[in-house]
Amino acid sequence: MPQISLTRVVQFSASHRLHVKSYSAEKNLRVFGKCNSPNGHGHNYKAEITVVGALNPETGMVLNLTLLKQIIEKTVIKHLDHKNLNLDVPEFKAINPTAENIAIVIWKMIRPKLARGLDLEIKLFETENNIVLYRGEKSAGERA
Amino acid sequence: MPQISLTRVVQFSASHRLHVKSYSAEKNLRVFGKCNSPNGHGHNYKAEITVVGALNPETGMVLNLTLLKQIIEKTVIKHLDHKNLNLDVPEFKAINPTAENIAIVIWKMIRPKLARGLDLEIKLFETENNIVLYRGEKSAGERA
Amino acid sequence: MPQISLTRVVQFSASHRLHVKSYSAEKNLRVFGKCNSPNGHGHNYKAEITVVGALNPETGMVLNLTLLKQIIEKTVIKHLDHKNLNLDVPEFKAINPTAENIAIVIWKMIRPKLARGLDLEIKLFETENNIVLYRGEKSAGERA
Amino acid sequence: MPQISLTRVVQFSASHRLHVKSYSAEKNLRVFGKCNSPNGHGHNYKAEITVVGALNPETGMVLNLTLLKQIIEKTVIKHLDHKNLNLDVPEFKAINPTAENIAIVIWKMIRPKLARGLDLEIKLFETENNIVLYRGEKSAGERA
Amino acid sequence: MPQISLTRVVQFSASHRLHVKSYSAEKNLRVFGKCNSPNGHGHNYKAEITVVGALNPETGMVLNLTLLKQIIEKTVIKHLDHKNLNLDVPEFKAINPTAENIAIVIWKMIRPKLARGLDLEIKLFETENNIVLYRGEKSAGERA
Amino acid sequence: MPQISLTRVVQFSASHRLHVKSYSAEKNLRVFGKCNSPNGHGHNYKAEITVVGALNPETGMVLNLTLLKQIIEKTVIKHLDHKNLNLDVPEFKAINPTAENIAIVIWKMIRPKLARGLDLEIKLFETENNIVLYRGEKSAGERA
Repeated sequence: MPQISLTRVVQFSASHRLHVKSYSAEKNLRVFGKCNSPNGHGHNYKAEITVVGALNPETGMVLNLTLLKQIIEKTVIKHLDHKNLNLDVPEFKAINPTAENIAIVIWKMIRPKLARGLDLEIKLFETENNIVLYRGEKSAGERA
Repeated sequence: MPQISLTRVVQFSASHRLHVKSYSAEKNLRVFGKCNSPNGHGHNYKAEITVVGALNPETGMVLNLTLLKQIIEKTVIKHLDHKNLNLDVPEFKAINPTAENIAIVIWKMIRPKLARGLDLEIKLFETENNIVLYRGEKSAGERA
Repeated sequence: MPQISLTRVVQFSASHRLHVKSYSAEKNLRVFGKCNSPNGHGHNYKAEITVVGALNPETGMVLNLTLLKQIIEKTVIKHLDHKNLNLDVPEFKAINPTAENIAIVIWKMIRPKLARGLDLEIKLFETENNIVLYRGEKSAGERA
Repeated sequence: MPQISLTRVVQFSASHRLHVKSYSAEKNLRVFGKCNSPNGHGHNYKAEITVVGALNPETGMVLNLTLLKQIIEKTVIKHLDHKNLNLDVPEFKAINPTAENIAIVIWKMIRPKLARGLDLEIKLFETENNIVLYRGEKSAGERA
Repeated sequence: MPQISLTRVVQFSASHRLHVKSYSAEKNLRVFGKCNSPNGHGHNYKAEITVVGALNPETGMVLNLTLLKQIIEKTVIKHLDHKNLNLDVPEFKAINPTAENIAIVIWKMIRPKLARGLDLEIKLFETENNIVLYRGEKSAGERA
Repeated sequence: MPQISLTRVVQFSASHRLHVKSYSAEKNLRVFGKCNSPNGHGHNYKAEITVVGALNPETGMVLNLTLLKQIIEKTVIKHLDHKNLNLDVPEFKAINPTAENIAIVIWKMIRPKLARGLDLEIKLFETENNIVLYRGEKSAGERA
């Protein structure tokens, strides 16, 4: 069966502060600049959530888009939208909410809900101009 | 020679209805939801048509863009634009016009017009938020 | 109180056919071109729905956005999304579903739900490149 | 001299919480919904800052764009970008940081820097789908 | 009859240099900065061409969009696309090709092709972030 | 460590002319069409500059975005923005400034500034509809 990628794009609005607890105030400011601003700031994050798999020849679909929307709503939007990532989201208690880490967290939220035969990729836009892509735990050399 | 991807983006407006003839009315509604609405609905489809190949060192091009535009116009736009996919396009008489199948149909329309040394990928946007990608008959494992 | 415009953007996918019953087949084709294609075609319509009024100094809002979203959902999206405008929507039984007329129909759907002190404008994108704007029954000379 | 509008588009990332101090917790939640989330959330705000005036026939400009960029940088971006609007920006100590109020605050920041013969309008996108427009203290009836 | 605005969006790619012949080299550099770079630079200009008029109740259109497209193609695209505005376009022999002046030139190209009862507005995007709007020879006070 | 892609999007405005010195005037016109227009034309080029590497588990970043922005500013924007590519940029003295060659030139400008463990990809938008992608000197078969 041919392999197809199916992508659903969603948005969520959240605030965050880049900060590493083990760094001094000076080092945090030097490394993260204005993203270290003490009371946080925020973004309209856009996530492109891509599932790759074989086409179902009967329905003509890789995965029912309605099902994918429900998974994203329950596992991602409910936990991240209109939240302060540092204070409201347990996954960021110990790790810095950079775009890279947010993409990895979203991947880990969705991965267990998908069948094993499907691959998953997360592209996260922090702004229109700052974008990260995470393709899961295989190395980029194997996958991309 | 370095490999380069050249992408041309085109749009076409078409209507469709998701429906599998062998399914009952109830099953069609359950699987396809509002996309099964009896009189159809429509989209401004956007297709990113990508050709991958070696750079021609003389012209500095992978493929003359004017030629690619002509191929797309004659094989894709002419057959799909301002059409009812279910009723007007023979390729969808037997298969369901999902985004996945539309991408595969476009791939099959363009593939015979390209030299063998060029690869072809079709990314189709049904809406800004629903996107599929088809890279041809090789498995995703080999290619991507 | 200062006047503010509040705009909510929504999208809906629908199919239509431009056709005037009193015209001959030849005249319909001459006037409407490929938009007269017999089995219809479709678009992802985008509507910018703008309400203009005085700021409520207590809430800092012109109109509660949640209320505006509910009005749009119940009066516009429910009736137009995933529909064939010519066959499924009574407002277009007697009038041609041009972008101009769709904007006027949306204006008439929403207007009765708003307080008299609020003005209403509808900007409708049929595609990214074809756009109409309707500001209601006052003449453009008075309003714009 | 013909009148021309000149618009500069800028973006800033900030966090905010919609909350009226004189309301009970229940009323704040009922009026502002998820936008009242206690630790705040954020947006990539986009502002279209428009200056309207007579064309300078010598330069062919309404206002030197470099000058407009400097005014916006010093009066708007410096004070709002990568900030928590409720906690870091004095203008929002007493007023609710709704999109409407943010647009008015930006208008008041820029207005004193412009010559009297120029009009000023602020269009603020909180997200791609939620937009406000403020044209200054004249009533909409006079101006628009 | 209700008044409706109909907008067609087109793009053209051109190069230009901002330069006033009567200015010294130093003054040109001070006023126009990098836009005065001697060999010119370029843009993908986007023009939103808006016609405002009464709805034709029979067709449901303000103006036939096919006709508007032809007017734009023949009067604007043919003369500006893939051109060096300073060297190839007679209208800019004596005036500086700023965004403001380009919008006025486009207005003057299209105005004679439209019926007297129709108003015309030109919104020109030099980049996504630099935009001008020209509504014709009436003052902004009368019109906007 | 998981592999992550980090993309920074930048824009620059430049002019160019497609022309091969060893071709006759007739052949240049036939091959390059309106892009061969003698005095050149221009574009707002958009470049997506992607760095692929291992996540730094301490900072949660692949590469400090501030550093990446500085590299792009100094090596790309400074040399290409507001320039005539054919006349002002030494890299195009001997090669044709097609989108393909511009992407390769940008890749060569940035590559020496990055650590060896990082991969680099350049996606260049000449217009919204004409896009090229260059992933470096490995063959597409190995990489993609």
